[in-house]
Amino acid sequence: MASGHPLNDVFHPRSIAVVGVSSNELRESLMGWLPRLLNFGYSGKLYPVNPSVSEIMGMKAYPSVRDIPEPVDYVIFNIPARLAPQIMADCTAKGVKAVHVFTAGFSETGKEEGRRLEEELSRIAREGGVRVIGPNCMGIYYPKEGLTFYPTFCKEAGSVAVIAQTGAGAIRLVSQANERGIRFSKVVSYGNACDLDVTHFLDYLADDEETEIIACYIEGVRDGRAFFEAVKECMKRKPVIILKAGVTEGGAAAAASHTAALAGSQSVWDAFFGQTGAISVESLEGIVDMVLALQHFPCPRGPRVGIVGRGGGIGVIAADICERVGLLVPSFNEETRKGLEKINPEAGASVRNPVETALGLAGASQFYQEGLRIVDADPNIDFIISHIGLDIYGGFGPSLAEQLEQTVDILIEMAKTLTKPVALVLYAGARLDAIGAVAQAQRRCLDAGLPVYYTIEAAAKAVSKVIRYYNFTEETKKELVR
Amino acid sequence: MASGHPLNDVFHPRSIAVVGVSSNELRESLMGWLPRLLNFGYSGKLYPVNPSVSEIMGMKAYPSVRDIPEPVDYVIFNIPARLAPQIMADCTAKGVKAVHVFTAGFSETGKEEGRRLEEELSRIAREGGVRVIGPNCMGIYYPKEGLTFYPTFCKEAGSVAVIAQTGAGAIRLVSQANERGIRFSKVVSYGNACDLDVTHFLDYLADDEETEIIACYIEGVRDGRAFFEAVKECMKRKPVIILKAGVTEGGAAAAASHTAALAGSQSVWDAFFGQTGAISVESLEGIVDMVLALQHFPCPRGPRVGIVGRGGGIGVIAADICERVGLLVPSFNEETRKGLEKINPEAGASVRNPVETALGLAGASQFYQEGLRIVDADPNIDFIISHIGLDIYGGFGPSLAEQLEQTVDILIEMAKTLTKPVALVLYAGARLDAIGAVAQAQRRCLDAGLPVYYTIEAAAKAVSKVIRYYNFTEETKKELVR
Repeated sequence: MASGHPLNDVFHPRSIAVVGVSSNELRESLMGWLPRLLNFGYSGKLYPVNPSVSEIMGMKAYPSVRDIPEPVDYVIFNIPARLAPQIMADCTAKGVKAVHVFTAGFSETGKEEGRRLEEELSRIAREGGVRVIGPNCMGIYYPKEGLTFYPTFCKEAGSVAVIAQTGAGAIRLVSQANERGIRFSKVVSYGNACDLDVTHFLDYLADDEETEIIACYIEGVRDGRAFFEAVKECMKRKPVIILKAGVTEGGAAAAASHTAALAGSQSVWDAFFGQTGAISVESLEGIVDMVLALQHFPCPRGPRVGIVGRGGGIGVIAADICERVGLLVPSFNEETRKGLEKINPEAGASVRNPVETALGLAGASQFYQEGLRIVDADPNIDFIISHIGLDIYGGFGPSLAEQLEQTVDILIEMAKTLTKPVALVLYAGARLDAIGAVAQAQRRCLDAGLPVYYTIEAAAKAVSKVIRYYNFTEETKKELVR
Repeated sequence: MASGHPLNDVFHPRSIAVVGVSSNELRESLMGWLPRLLNFGYSGKLYPVNPSVSEIMGMKAYPSVRDIPEPVDYVIFNIPARLAPQIMADCTAKGVKAVHVFTAGFSETGKEEGRRLEEELSRIAREGGVRVIGPNCMGIYYPKEGLTFYPTFCKEAGSVAVIAQTGAGAIRLVSQANERGIRFSKVVSYGNACDLDVTHFLDYLADDEETEIIACYIEGVRDGRAFFEAVKECMKRKPVIILKAGVTEGGAAAAASHTAALAGSQSVWDAFFGQTGAISVESLEGIVDMVLALQHFPCPRGPRVGIVGRGGGIGVIAADICERVGLLVPSFNEETRKGLEKINPEAGASVRNPVETALGLAGASQFYQEGLRIVDADPNIDFIISHIGLDIYGGFGPSLAEQLEQTVDILIEMAKTLTKPVALVLYAGARLDAIGAVAQAQRRCLDAGLPVYYTIEAAAKAVSKVIRYYNFTEETKKELVR
């Protein structure tokens, strides 16, 4: 942990005051900040602040932050924007270390009043030595400390950090990632960034021992040069994934009204990614796909993929997809082709790359297992993408769930003996039973270290970026040695 | 219906013989061709052909096609490839009109023996006047006639035709489309195309009154010029969607081993799409998305989209996605902004484009309804994409299904009064209850004429192609008038 870092206090508050809690909010249970934190297991002291009531949830409520008799490390603002400067003055007087301004209605409104309020807010904070997350954001999710901004997030901690200018987007990202087995160290939704910006958080997380991978959603940055340096520095220690939103004209205009961000042009950002080596993605799903690849996909030796699955046409489409994202789909060598021919009992099933191993109506078979082993041994191949489509997988014999479970048994057993990395694509189609079966199978595969994707495109994109990432870090290391 | 067309017999067989049925196959029920056709409602005569048994499923089995005492219109080959020429000779002797060679193991093997067998097969057919679908394919799905190649396909008929060189891909495509409310007129999986090629089917379907939209999956064509002319001719009457697989180097190699197709270069195909106006897609999902847009999205006046939904960052990403595929995300005019400001009760929710209407934890509200109406009235906007993310939609109050049902009620009521087309994005996330709720909601929306997509990208891509399609046909009409 970066224990000496000035931002350390922000992530480790011993006490939190929530300003603006109402009895009405509390009745709605997890909609309120206090019950949310209590329910999530925050073990520090909690202080409700509300001038009109004396007690909330059995806790004494204080009229103002100043009236709290003990020290307060962290304050959540849940009040109208116009009251924010006064509350901030209370915080500086009280000696609060950091505040999270959940409240919106500042510079992102595009109005003079909002801009003025935000300036006043940050001036008071700066002069009083209080660090600010926000305004207009969701704040911190830090499962290890029992901090969260959404009640259904996973309580288990992990090693992925997120720095996001979006709130709803961060909720979607974490929820999706949780479902796919990803656990988080620290997530911060920081909105308009009137004080703390992505650069500050990057600087902190670069040395954070709890964090192995960092993902950012940014619309704009205040200090481009400082951000560039922070990303470069971070990349020496851990991979940085960046979703830069607001790169088109319409997107930049949207970013301006979302977080008042100056978005910057596509060409500037292209150069940025080229020079820092940061991993560029274009969607929240892309972040999740990328994290999975970094966590579970050992560095392949090169971009040559062996595609194993069912369906000739689906294989052709898969080959196109792989090559479009920069992978290569080479021919197998003769030994491989002969080996596959020997085991493949079905006429019409390709023994070339992409290979159709007999994985059909009867479920996974020994041929599938043997086929993977033969492809794995081909010197023309650096890694394998195996795709299993439950929509064309059967359902006439045993149940889909049983069939898939049997296949996953084989895959997990296999993965231990294969010499090359495997990415698995489990395509469920629209049937609810198939989707449920895939969700189950996915967890088992991830526990066994096999990354699971929902589409061939998602797998191919993520793997191609992993290869680029390792190439970049290798090059950087060589440059450092020279 | 193109009743005078020579291919008419292929789609309207009064009797079908299945050669190669085994008692073993029949025990597995819908795995066999005969039980599959019976179960699907084929009302013509069925003849099992198998020299080693005398009766199958209560039907007399014949040793050969020649031994059937009545006329046979159509024969399905379900025998090893080496037997195919002999069976074909039986068919020509019997006066069969068309055969479907399900059997694989011909030119797609890349081997001399397979190539020779296929040549022999097509020579015998040609000389005997028999039309051939295949070899190495699934044949015909024609719900109106009770023909199918997959037991779980929808029995209800519709107006979409598919011409596909793939088998498993066709199964995936139809299944997916069925789930999203699409019904089919005629689907043909035609494999190696030793006789009937995409061009023949296009020529037939161009005048088929049961077909309003045609989608093709092709790996290669035998006669490029004829195909070009057929597509151009078809496009005068109905839209043609084409997934051209095997355009990359690896994809083309895969196509060669899948259907022995000569794939052709990317630049040739780019020119082809530019000149014919055919709608190019890159995935099976893309075909489904495109069909929905053509069926349910009235021609918008232009590419200017108003994006309505929840989440600021999600809106910025949506704006980028829309502009990347050629749509425009313009500013609303002042009247719209003022109107939205008046109704929007939440600070921090954008009243610019993309707009965040209050569609949050409490479910759909009157503000959402009113917001759609205000955006609809803006002269800067040609159409609307409304996105609803169930993952950030709530679940703390009433159930997701109830909330979504209420929203859909409003949407369906609304859609009747809006002046501009609306595409709906229902994003479920990974929760099974949300996925189930979306499946329900989707059906209701489609019945009301609202196209539903799973991602903003899918909606934006499909809509941008609809606009391009209408522009192309308008231009073509103008040229014809000149």
